[in-house]
Amino acid sequence: MKRSLCTSLWLLALSLTIFVTDLTAQQNLWQKRSVVSPEIGADRTVTLRLYAPAATDVKLHGDFMEGSKSGSMTMTRSEDGVWEYRSEPLESELYCYWFQVDGIDHVVDPSNSYVMRDVGSQMNYFIIPGERGDLYSAQDVEHGTVARVWGEVSDGRERRMTIYTPSDYEGSKRRYPVLYLLHGMGGDEEAWIATGRVAEIMDNLIASGKAEPMIVVMTNGCTKHVSAPGYSHEGMWTPYMSGSMDGSFEAMFPSIVEWVDSNYRTIRKSKSRAIAGLSMGGFHSMQISKEYPEMFNYVGLFSAAIFRGKQGVATYEDLESKLERQFSGDLELYWIAIGSEDFLYDENVKYRELLDSKGYKYEYRESGDGHVWRNWRIYIAEFVQKLFK
Amino acid sequence: MKRSLCTSLWLLALSLTIFVTDLTAQQNLWQKRSVVSPEIGADRTVTLRLYAPAATDVKLHGDFMEGSKSGSMTMTRSEDGVWEYRSEPLESELYCYWFQVDGIDHVVDPSNSYVMRDVGSQMNYFIIPGERGDLYSAQDVEHGTVARVWGEVSDGRERRMTIYTPSDYEGSKRRYPVLYLLHGMGGDEEAWIATGRVAEIMDNLIASGKAEPMIVVMTNGCTKHVSAPGYSHEGMWTPYMSGSMDGSFEAMFPSIVEWVDSNYRTIRKSKSRAIAGLSMGGFHSMQISKEYPEMFNYVGLFSAAIFRGKQGVATYEDLESKLERQFSGDLELYWIAIGSEDFLYDENVKYRELLDSKGYKYEYRESGDGHVWRNWRIYIAEFVQKLFK
Repeated sequence: MKRSLCTSLWLLALSLTIFVTDLTAQQNLWQKRSVVSPEIGADRTVTLRLYAPAATDVKLHGDFMEGSKSGSMTMTRSEDGVWEYRSEPLESELYCYWFQVDGIDHVVDPSNSYVMRDVGSQMNYFIIPGERGDLYSAQDVEHGTVARVWGEVSDGRERRMTIYTPSDYEGSKRRYPVLYLLHGMGGDEEAWIATGRVAEIMDNLIASGKAEPMIVVMTNGCTKHVSAPGYSHEGMWTPYMSGSMDGSFEAMFPSIVEWVDSNYRTIRKSKSRAIAGLSMGGFHSMQISKEYPEMFNYVGLFSAAIFRGKQGVATYEDLESKLERQFSGDLELYWIAIGSEDFLYDENVKYRELLDSKGYKYEYRESGDGHVWRNWRIYIAEFVQKLFK
Repeated sequence: MKRSLCTSLWLLALSLTIFVTDLTAQQNLWQKRSVVSPEIGADRTVTLRLYAPAATDVKLHGDFMEGSKSGSMTMTRSEDGVWEYRSEPLESELYCYWFQVDGIDHVVDPSNSYVMRDVGSQMNYFIIPGERGDLYSAQDVEHGTVARVWGEVSDGRERRMTIYTPSDYEGSKRRYPVLYLLHGMGGDEEAWIATGRVAEIMDNLIASGKAEPMIVVMTNGCTKHVSAPGYSHEGMWTPYMSGSMDGSFEAMFPSIVEWVDSNYRTIRKSKSRAIAGLSMGGFHSMQISKEYPEMFNYVGLFSAAIFRGKQGVATYEDLESKLERQFSGDLELYWIAIGSEDFLYDENVKYRELLDSKGYKYEYRESGDGHVWRNWRIYIAEFVQKLFK
């Protein structure tokens, strides 16, 4: 006989609990959790635990470990079979991690319900409270709406987008400015909202008056696909390092703007439109904003892959004359940000030298770290505070 | 120096791939995947693999294994350290699984990017194509919008809902009927859309003309919380078996309907409203529809926890007289469904005996299996085909 997953556990758990309103996390029968992980201390340390009695080597991969160049270290086994790592006090931030158990890599912490996908991998995360961590966490403020929508674009296909509308959008007749926010290679329309914490950041900055209420449109910049994996008829492929740097995304972009303008209460003017993106999305933002200079007055290039377009594509030619046209227009802000350890650092230097040589005005923001989400969350939070004011 | 997670991997992967448009899943450098899992055969078998060279015991927990009462079995180790399980040909369905490695339970398959959360646990899933699997998969049809929205209800708080609007909602001025769809204990407003596959099911049934276009409102029936964990200021608690069977959810329900009617193009009539739910949500649907008989003409009780309300709550008293009022009204459909192995089977028999004794008309659907999502996906797909016709 075929038995259904967890039927027995359900029976047990539900029978025991259906009259019990609250079970603490520690008592959770469903998961039979024997350890608490992560445990965030009042001193801003984190303790991570994995019950692995038979393991001989449990490594932790994380982005919060001092003294670890590789980003991994071996955890300590206690006599009861629990492997543990306790950090130093950490600065306020969203941190990611996973375990490696006796050679099995990318083991997600079974005690931590919070996971995010980056390209094809799942990893856990936790947030250390404080200035930045609080910005990335839902607070007691009005929340905007996050919608996954499908819009037909110029290639005749429906494409999926994630659209954030601010809390006062519903129930008002007001029109709003729009930020188009573009992901990097291997990303999709889920990247900025999940890993980039855009809804939390926007809710918090708008509530505190630091950012104007705006619509944020998170597109899918891999033109080969119409959506993130699993959401379209293209099926449940394994996410991989894909993208489009062949002119196809730039070509369809005006039809995306047109669709958004037709379906949302937008202000249909360049002074109320911004475009920004990370890595490949920074490249796209640079290209799209110079191809359609009448469309966007605000441009953000985050860790942009400036000079990586496919050779021989007309869109990517005549860069200097197109920039001249763009910078002679109504540009309000051209914002370039990159980490000092980013592998794209040198080509951003080269690009800024080009802009400098022409006397084009831009703002430059350099952070530490490399080509990582930690930087992109910082950049988006700073960038949106400069828009539409 | 603090190094960021994956910086080195990013550098490697991006340097190698930024000029390469397509990498196959097998070549994915990001994840350094050494095995393919799941592999779904043309013969509708599934092969699952885990690279665990040092493990001495790898078990598979899944809901698709013949001959396994417990839902788990030991996998087979090959000489290269890969543990493997190959199924018999499976009927078309969405299946869930996880690994147990040397006593570490709930190890998510690192090669499978597709996970879903049920209460506090993450698990992998895969879909065997065919009739039912295709219904649960995105197809080449028009897709509706899925939005996470916040609406203020009668307790003065904003509460989070997941709302599906059909593909023709945008760009039309038409009004639509509404199905209110309620989760069980430990669930929240994410349950039906993620594990219940409601967007895929609705898109596919509407596209094939089997269901009327409708709005589906997936509420949060745990009144103690305003949202699923992580989405509100209540923080990132570990999901647990929580719910509200104390009259509080029933009391606020009219204000939810009012909010939806005020913010969406709904048909504000009982003949265009349905309410259904699973387990605790079935209990809620029974209670709410009898408390407000003028509100809903369609009611669905899926594996309902019929007689589990808190003692002494006025809402739950005078059942028979309230049912008499409800069944003397404009009820179009009262649909009761349960699995033959469900631990709530007996009280559903008892409830039907009560309805029978009064001569009240209802439809009854009995399936195999127990208190599991497999049944609830079947029920929702059958139920929505009966609505608003």
